[in-house]
Amino acid sequence: MNQIQSGDLVQLVGRKDKRYIFRVTPGTIFQSHEGEIPHDDIIGLTWGSQIFSHLGKPFFAVRPSMHDILITTKRQTQIVYPKEIGFILLNLNVQSGQTIIEAGTGSGAFTTALAYAVGDDGKVLSYDRRIELQRIAIENIKKLKLDHRVEFINQDIEDGFNEQDVDAVFLDVPKPEEYIEHVRIALKPGGFFGSIVPTTNQVSRLIRSLAHYKFGMLEVCEIMLRYYKPVPERLRPQDRMIAHTGYLIFARSLNFTDQEESSSEDQLNNINPSEEV
Amino acid sequence: MNQIQSGDLVQLVGRKDKRYIFRVTPGTIFQSHEGEIPHDDIIGLTWGSQIFSHLGKPFFAVRPSMHDILITTKRQTQIVYPKEIGFILLNLNVQSGQTIIEAGTGSGAFTTALAYAVGDDGKVLSYDRRIELQRIAIENIKKLKLDHRVEFINQDIEDGFNEQDVDAVFLDVPKPEEYIEHVRIALKPGGFFGSIVPTTNQVSRLIRSLAHYKFGMLEVCEIMLRYYKPVPERLRPQDRMIAHTGYLIFARSLNFTDQEESSSEDQLNNINPSEEV
Amino acid sequence: MNQIQSGDLVQLVGRKDKRYIFRVTPGTIFQSHEGEIPHDDIIGLTWGSQIFSHLGKPFFAVRPSMHDILITTKRQTQIVYPKEIGFILLNLNVQSGQTIIEAGTGSGAFTTALAYAVGDDGKVLSYDRRIELQRIAIENIKKLKLDHRVEFINQDIEDGFNEQDVDAVFLDVPKPEEYIEHVRIALKPGGFFGSIVPTTNQVSRLIRSLAHYKFGMLEVCEIMLRYYKPVPERLRPQDRMIAHTGYLIFARSLNFTDQEESSSEDQLNNINPSEEV
Amino acid sequence: MNQIQSGDLVQLVGRKDKRYIFRVTPGTIFQSHEGEIPHDDIIGLTWGSQIFSHLGKPFFAVRPSMHDILITTKRQTQIVYPKEIGFILLNLNVQSGQTIIEAGTGSGAFTTALAYAVGDDGKVLSYDRRIELQRIAIENIKKLKLDHRVEFINQDIEDGFNEQDVDAVFLDVPKPEEYIEHVRIALKPGGFFGSIVPTTNQVSRLIRSLAHYKFGMLEVCEIMLRYYKPVPERLRPQDRMIAHTGYLIFARSLNFTDQEESSSEDQLNNINPSEEV
Repeated sequence: MNQIQSGDLVQLVGRKDKRYIFRVTPGTIFQSHEGEIPHDDIIGLTWGSQIFSHLGKPFFAVRPSMHDILITTKRQTQIVYPKEIGFILLNLNVQSGQTIIEAGTGSGAFTTALAYAVGDDGKVLSYDRRIELQRIAIENIKKLKLDHRVEFINQDIEDGFNEQDVDAVFLDVPKPEEYIEHVRIALKPGGFFGSIVPTTNQVSRLIRSLAHYKFGMLEVCEIMLRYYKPVPERLRPQDRMIAHTGYLIFARSLNFTDQEESSSEDQLNNINPSEEV
Repeated sequence: MNQIQSGDLVQLVGRKDKRYIFRVTPGTIFQSHEGEIPHDDIIGLTWGSQIFSHLGKPFFAVRPSMHDILITTKRQTQIVYPKEIGFILLNLNVQSGQTIIEAGTGSGAFTTALAYAVGDDGKVLSYDRRIELQRIAIENIKKLKLDHRVEFINQDIEDGFNEQDVDAVFLDVPKPEEYIEHVRIALKPGGFFGSIVPTTNQVSRLIRSLAHYKFGMLEVCEIMLRYYKPVPERLRPQDRMIAHTGYLIFARSLNFTDQEESSSEDQLNNINPSEEV
Repeated sequence: MNQIQSGDLVQLVGRKDKRYIFRVTPGTIFQSHEGEIPHDDIIGLTWGSQIFSHLGKPFFAVRPSMHDILITTKRQTQIVYPKEIGFILLNLNVQSGQTIIEAGTGSGAFTTALAYAVGDDGKVLSYDRRIELQRIAIENIKKLKLDHRVEFINQDIEDGFNEQDVDAVFLDVPKPEEYIEHVRIALKPGGFFGSIVPTTNQVSRLIRSLAHYKFGMLEVCEIMLRYYKPVPERLRPQDRMIAHTGYLIFARSLNFTDQEESSSEDQLNNINPSEEV
Repeated sequence: MNQIQSGDLVQLVGRKDKRYIFRVTPGTIFQSHEGEIPHDDIIGLTWGSQIFSHLGKPFFAVRPSMHDILITTKRQTQIVYPKEIGFILLNLNVQSGQTIIEAGTGSGAFTTALAYAVGDDGKVLSYDRRIELQRIAIENIKKLKLDHRVEFINQDIEDGFNEQDVDAVFLDVPKPEEYIEHVRIALKPGGFFGSIVPTTNQVSRLIRSLAHYKFGMLEVCEIMLRYYKPVPERLRPQDRMIAHTGYLIFARSLNFTDQEESSSEDQLNNINPSEEV
């Protein structure tokens, strides 16, 4: 369903990345420092649409990701931080019953993670043009008895994806910036996009392409994991660690009400959500 | 089911943390540099048991976590690293249909994550002695329509847990080391334990207690997450970041064949799995 | 001398680590939110002594370290941070008796560090086109009685440097890549070059320019400094930290025997020395 | 002097960043896996020049930086790493003309850095009970012609130090907490103390001891250094890094006016200065 329904969980994202999550209830009015919006005006909107408060302030109405929900959970006590909880899956909001595209298949490791997360009612569509890699991935998936959840597609994504209205797309390819138009076509309105790239130059090219194709809510980050030697009397980190795997990029397919490029620019400069904790 | 069955996915963990994952098949023989073990000898073992190869080398037979599976996935290409993929959930192997204990409830954020992950067939048992906190958590869970998956228990865990044979226990309390005996009773053999604590002193006390109560496969780590300003022409990290939330500790409930304390010591000194990537 | 003398540079450290650095002057009164202390009461105190303001608030009177001085230098502009300064001095091989160029002057923090390091026989040549900034830096250097070691040059470096055969050049300017030809002319053969820039795009441009102008032994790195709460029973990192000040770039002015560009390329791909530890 | 002279300390940098530091001596031949070069061919070269071995392999002949020297110091023992050295010198306020105690001598890497920093008018007193280690350090210091600045003392510091009124003391020993009373006696009033220890347990013991002996302005931190591959079009961090060398601890010898232990406690809970930047 591409339109927001009564009872849906919705997230309004205002300027400076102010976020509000609530269940849409007819007759209720959303209120914030940036103005009011009747819930009845939200119902029927296409997911990802821009909407304005009675003060003329802009908001986007999107599905909240698991990550969004955790970030906005009120914090009365020290809690486990969202950043430790399934970072990519939470950011892409991968859940039971969803349809997810990934490219390329690679070794099939992330395919496996997606297949676990989407459950028996979901579907993972895994693209790769390298048949020999996919064969190994197919073997891996079969061993885990998850093959009924995954469709491997031996196809170059420069010709686009076969599907539309998928919930999320994740790209782990050398030039993700070249496929963003295809990603937009394949995604549901407001859908989730994620990618991982090793170099800063790729990050720059990708976020430029995302802005060009009207993606917003851009986030770029990296995760560093350091293990400790688990010895009670001599507790200390390991001597060496992995310094870098890749930069993570997340974005959402948005619909801008008008042609102002500046809206996209604003989204580029959004605040890192975990900075608001 | 506490015994390993034909067809189960099993992980043998040898010395120096060498790990082997395979599906148990009658008539097949497991082979490694450390010797051979007939699959028929594995079938019927209690999960978490120690078993010896024909060369007399020790192994533990445990359920592989999602994290274990990803770590051992063959890597032909650069892939998304396991550390980015649902770190705690993967390490605790939280999946659809499972029963998970957490204490304390706190704000209910991790409860929410668990409730998502266990699905409609699973159950989260969330303990806290502070009723006022649980009330807020209950509200949060209801809003997400996940309350049928969670049982909130307003009880101090120093009296133990009400359940047995749960798949995993996660402790987010000030003195987790005091409840490890209770955790062992509540967990399935070979079950997963996780915790987060803010200070190094707590880490030392907790891993000492875990070793005392025959937990092994100890891991201690911390995750650092750094966001970047998503501006293509001026790509750079944010100015400030969260320096610390807590240390993560993971362990497994094991059954030692004999009383050698040294086995536990060996487990303490295991290699960080991701160091072998 | 173990007692504080008139004219000494002193640091008062109050509650919550509030710090004040000044030169002790008879007849003057130190003033703060925590109360007043006449300088005459400070003169004659043993270094490290506790002293109380007229409001009864405690202070310690200590010598400021170089680090203390750098931390408290007023910040009108983006500056080289204390955490990077020690590392830069070692990598540029700054020593007593040398001649070092820096541009821009900025707040004068790095100028101060250089002036300490070159000693009375050395010279720091500090370029900046912004006279108002240099005035503040000159004030800071005078307070520390280091002004005889520094020559401030109010000049745009796009016209080049006035000197030749200097030991090292450090650039803390927005477009260092535009001045590398000038740097090569100013440096001794084999001389040391360093720079700090905040964005990855600047790093790419700078190292391209350095290779073009026959610099080699290129190194790019970043330093992360994390403080801990110094409590023995609850040892843990501070909650937040500085995520980024800048990327450090080091290189050497080299002479290639022939025209093979590939040699320069090889140098670009050199191994990080500390990887060989 | 722009040409390499007989007796100069030179660094040859070969392919894959292989580095060799030695003093140029007529009649001697440099030997490596990449071939031989007579020292006489190096004499007279302009600094930074390329030179080829008899096998035709290229080297650059450059001055070694202090950082280069520290990196290549032979490592018989755990040493203070170059990445920490610059920071320690600034925090201990090491300057020309000062008297500094260090223990133990170890490989002499930090001894070298101190000897550079105190200049010809200063003195480094380097304690170690292991004569065989000191012999190596003495060799290293002699090669650098810094031996007149260092006094090596072959003595166990559990009997205390021979000196009083020194400017700073640095301990790189397994149990620094046992010598803090000695440190206090050796230091000037208000003097600087620093230490590096690998484990969190040592940090806790040391800061407890420092508080007990009336040290204040306690700071605990760690430095992480990450190198990047210096390739303009594919800028990214190295794959692996050193995860940990040690925790740095700094403190000042203070005099409390009265007996309030709480004052010391307050100092323990001081704010990290760089948090106020």
